[in-house]
Amino acid sequence: MTFRATILTLYPEMFPGPLGHSLAGRALREDRWALEAVQIRDFATDKHRSVDDTPAGGGAGMVLRADVLAAAVDSVADDRPVLAMTPRGRPLTQPRVRELAAGPGVTVLCGRFEGFDERLFEARGIEQVSIGDYILSGGEMGALVLLDACVRLLPGVMGAASSGVEESFESGLLEYPQYARPAEWEGRTIPEVLRSGDHAKIAAWRHARACEDTRSRRPDLWERHEGVRVGRPLARGDD
Amino acid sequence: MTFRATILTLYPEMFPGPLGHSLAGRALREDRWALEAVQIRDFATDKHRSVDDTPAGGGAGMVLRADVLAAAVDSVADDRPVLAMTPRGRPLTQPRVRELAAGPGVTVLCGRFEGFDERLFEARGIEQVSIGDYILSGGEMGALVLLDACVRLLPGVMGAASSGVEESFESGLLEYPQYARPAEWEGRTIPEVLRSGDHAKIAAWRHARACEDTRSRRPDLWERHEGVRVGRPLARGDD
Repeated sequence: MTFRATILTLYPEMFPGPLGHSLAGRALREDRWALEAVQIRDFATDKHRSVDDTPAGGGAGMVLRADVLAAAVDSVADDRPVLAMTPRGRPLTQPRVRELAAGPGVTVLCGRFEGFDERLFEARGIEQVSIGDYILSGGEMGALVLLDACVRLLPGVMGAASSGVEESFESGLLEYPQYARPAEWEGRTIPEVLRSGDHAKIAAWRHARACEDTRSRRPDLWERHEGVRVGRPLARGDD
Repeated sequence: MTFRATILTLYPEMFPGPLGHSLAGRALREDRWALEAVQIRDFATDKHRSVDDTPAGGGAGMVLRADVLAAAVDSVADDRPVLAMTPRGRPLTQPRVRELAAGPGVTVLCGRFEGFDERLFEARGIEQVSIGDYILSGGEMGALVLLDACVRLLPGVMGAASSGVEESFESGLLEYPQYARPAEWEGRTIPEVLRSGDHAKIAAWRHARACEDTRSRRPDLWERHEGVRVGRPLARGDD
């Protein structure tokens, strides 16, 4: 079964873009996954091919019409989940990426302007996804990120160049810091323990550093990790 | 002053990629910003042009060498901040995007494999940035996301197509849901209040929906928002 991605967008020329290179690009050429970009404007019904309208209740910008978007979604409907990239969505996580990568593929709806008419999501059971707490010019970048994250997990995609181990987030902790030769560089040395050959000590050092860096850099992740570890109920709802 | 972006990458052919289209692409052609992609491999010093080595202490994958990367960073050093895209980084936020967009530009370091030799960051004062809690095949997608977020804020980039108001995150809340014509679609109507013409009522409804959706979808944002509102000390350290 090939993982199939369909992108509904006003800018189909953005795809495959960066996904045509490196690991994802090779995998695309080897048919390990398939990508199709569909022009939303082809589903407009008026002579101006309009896809948006002014926001009900007033305000700046334009809103993507539910009827036009639904027609685009319906044209590609199958057993794949339909995701819409929007800052109002649920934050993308590595566990969700892994679920998606294990499935038949995804249909991804890319917004522009002030977003989508909200009725679309309920009417078509669309999952709203956010890649982070910042604003992009459209959903296309989010779609590229989502696909890159999924494609690298597909069978046969990652070669010797990448380990395939998701250190960061996999354990609920950030990954420990890495070092490589030269052993000394600009007067800075690799931590002694990493050159000791003592695997138990190395593992303990790495775990301690992963904990320390998570606690200092990402108190949110650390709090959740500690909550899970000691069996306290989670303080946050997004798990 | 033109915002200048320099990307240090093993895949310069990925740029401008999607940033060559739509708003960012037009702005690039109009010289409202400048983009340069630099091949990291050009700074390797051995005959194999190697940029990476095995992790000190063992483990899968390869680590990008501090000496090679530092030479690449030094070659473009100026007054712009240097950012490295890594899941170990500080999460990218809209306030940080706004700061960067107001400055002279950015130099962005894209990782691959198991990441960077940690010594690089201290030695060159590099800011580690994460675009989200998921794993990508490399830092290039993160660099594209970061630049897209910055470029749309540059003077003259956003036209009538986009409102320029960062509703989501700007107020610490998700944006309220949007609706547009048709007034009735598949039996679903636009909320009555939005068709009332009563601006005060519309504003109150939108604020209530923004609060409701933030509370249910993003308890993490809601907790922070409430902490700020009632003047409690923040529970999280990333503000």
